Amino acid sequence: MPAEGPEMHQPQKASPNGITRAASDILIRLRTRAPRIHCITNAVAQNFTANVLLAAGCIPSMTLSPEEIGAFVASAQGLLVNLGTFDAERREATTVAVGAVAQRKLPWVLDPVFVDRAAPRAAFAGDLIGRHPTVVRLNHAEFAALAGCEPSRDQAMTYARANGIVIALSGKTDLVTDGHRAAAIANGHPLMAKVTAMGCAGSAILAACLAVEPDAFRAATAALLIMGVAGEIAGGQSAGPGSFAAAIIDALHNLDGPALFARARVD
Amino acid sequence: MPAEGPEMHQPQKASPNGITRAASDILIRLRTRAPRIHCITNAVAQNFTANVLLAAGCIPSMTLSPEEIGAFVASAQGLLVNLGTFDAERREATTVAVGAVAQRKLPWVLDPVFVDRAAPRAAFAGDLIGRHPTVVRLNHAEFAALAGCEPSRDQAMTYARANGIVIALSGKTDLVTDGHRAAAIANGHPLMAKVTAMGCAGSAILAACLAVEPDAFRAATAALLIMGVAGEIAGGQSAGPGSFAAAIIDALHNLDGPALFARARVD
Amino acid sequence: MPAEGPEMHQPQKASPNGITRAASDILIRLRTRAPRIHCITNAVAQNFTANVLLAAGCIPSMTLSPEEIGAFVASAQGLLVNLGTFDAERREATTVAVGAVAQRKLPWVLDPVFVDRAAPRAAFAGDLIGRHPTVVRLNHAEFAALAGCEPSRDQAMTYARANGIVIALSGKTDLVTDGHRAAAIANGHPLMAKVTAMGCAGSAILAACLAVEPDAFRAATAALLIMGVAGEIAGGQSAGPGSFAAAIIDALHNLDGPALFARARVD
Repeated sequence: MPAEGPEMHQPQKASPNGITRAASDILIRLRTRAPRIHCITNAVAQNFTANVLLAAGCIPSMTLSPEEIGAFVASAQGLLVNLGTFDAERREATTVAVGAVAQRKLPWVLDPVFVDRAAPRAAFAGDLIGRHPTVVRLNHAEFAALAGCEPSRDQAMTYARANGIVIALSGKTDLVTDGHRAAAIANGHPLMAKVTAMGCAGSAILAACLAVEPDAFRAATAALLIMGVAGEIAGGQSAGPGSFAAAIIDALHNLDGPALFARARVD
Repeated sequence: MPAEGPEMHQPQKASPNGITRAASDILIRLRTRAPRIHCITNAVAQNFTANVLLAAGCIPSMTLSPEEIGAFVASAQGLLVNLGTFDAERREATTVAVGAVAQRKLPWVLDPVFVDRAAPRAAFAGDLIGRHPTVVRLNHAEFAALAGCEPSRDQAMTYARANGIVIALSGKTDLVTDGHRAAAIANGHPLMAKVTAMGCAGSAILAACLAVEPDAFRAATAALLIMGVAGEIAGGQSAGPGSFAAAIIDALHNLDGPALFARARVD
Repeated sequence: MPAEGPEMHQPQKASPNGITRAASDILIRLRTRAPRIHCITNAVAQNFTANVLLAAGCIPSMTLSPEEIGAFVASAQGLLVNLGTFDAERREATTVAVGAVAQRKLPWVLDPVFVDRAAPRAAFAGDLIGRHPTVVRLNHAEFAALAGCEPSRDQAMTYARANGIVIALSGKTDLVTDGHRAAAIANGHPLMAKVTAMGCAGSAILAACLAVEPDAFRAATAALLIMGVAGEIAGGQSAGPGSFAAAIIDALHNLDGPALFARARVD
């Protein structure tokens, strides 16, 4: 076992071209394999998330009933746990679902929405980190609340490495790291922040990419690139956030590799 | 009582023109009578279902609270029970609501979403069939799980007759049968499968048609024709599933008899 | 203390120009202060309400979990309580949230949806009136059920005065009164009645206006004017209720003072 010197913590710069090519491949796999993605998500996000998954070629399911969520997860290829509505039913559903994915070694995404606003969900999210989500996707305020440190690239890498997870940190530029590799994705559109559940839906796309790509770092960069490029296309066709919400679903439905290559801003 | 010979099980071919004319009449009745339709439906579908009912001229309500659902159903003209979110609250609400419709002899629709994915909801749906829904609307996989046989026209007719219900079997071509009459409706658009809750909303329109038409077979064919034609109109005006979801609501709002006659593909 | 003679109950006519100017100022404050608005609202309305608040420049939150709603309300600037889904969870959340706003003297809006359809929620709404909501927004049937009298301007003024609240009575022409002042707002579009949760979202905008304007009468007239004008703009750009729902969010996002002045029909 090699000593883990500080030089190991320098990020390997992932090849931008390689990331875009992988995203293009993953997009095709979503359309051809149509993975089943089970989502434990907040009531605000359920409809939009389901439509985003359908537009990308996936089959969403959303049940929360503890007695059947095990069966749904068992026939799914990926799981999203979003804490946006933090009620007793969803907490119980999460416990059952996370047990089911662990048993079947399925990938899952944790989206710890609003952990900066209330201590009970921060504590719950902390416990879930210990259950080894494949990817944790969160914004700067949520990262600060969860990791107890500032949302810099270095801190994100350290936190990812310490917990054996991939971190997808959304912001003006998105950052993805598995603690060793790091990539910045600058795609996206300001209207994405004006549509509720846009981040939640992006996390669902992340779970979908994990379902068809075993390299979680590649899957996470692909998901953020796919959403960012779809957002840019939609932004050019919208008069405001209402038309944008429909246009990004249209854009996801029509997205292809050439559009990704034409627009990718990966570093 | 006549002997029920096999020849009785041959479907009477319902007149395509008669079906379209009935649908046109039912559409006008929806606009003029504005029936109140109570929906026990999944969280993913609630908003879209309410907007589809409003677009067709109906008044939706969606409460699940056991202590007041009886009052809502008592002042409604139709009920939809959709199992898409299968939680304790909705199961209790369903029991109360089905009791209320039985007492008032109101029509109701059962939409046994995803019974092919989890045994508990299949069992619950089986019990509900015994409570005599007016129409059961489902897709091929759900029919197979519920009826225990393949989703052919003959099996659907046998199952409808055995249970004293109308079956509306959705697929590439929709089939409606009351066990004696059968009709195939070929209208629709591929994007209907890419918008979540499209089938759930169609089941709500079915409950609405039952509220203004006592012949359940006529009501069911009308509902499927109305949704299918609205979908075709919307498909011609959409760039993808996001704009399609808005366009089908616009199309339902603007739909009239001449549009039904121009586009109906009924057999 | 002056005797309260009948002449005191004559409405002071609020200056239409002053109301429009106040609405224009309040709109700017929404964009610059970005108030956090917590919403206890029905499942049908959650997504649309969040998007309407975001379009107006606010930050919505929607959690119902009793253990954390206090923390959410404590970091919010306004609260909406909408009774559209009247379940045990929301009743408990309401009790906690109303306690939290009382302690912090935050403004809150009560939207007693469908109190005319079921006695239990009418009783619950009656209790909430005694907890001093800043504004109660409701339609004619709901007012009649709650106040036990016809929804005339005089009765609304009497009821507002008796309960120390502002009443925002929606109808073909909206009426706002604090019991002393009264204003009629004639803006709006017929398609607003064909989109579910439009009224609920309007009540959320009302809570947002209260968060940035201490005069509750001014805030309520501003909210109804803002929604009405946005509805008129959207109506001119829509083919039906589906496209209208997106267009009104676009219109809110793009709304400014000149548009309010050009279209306001205040009396």
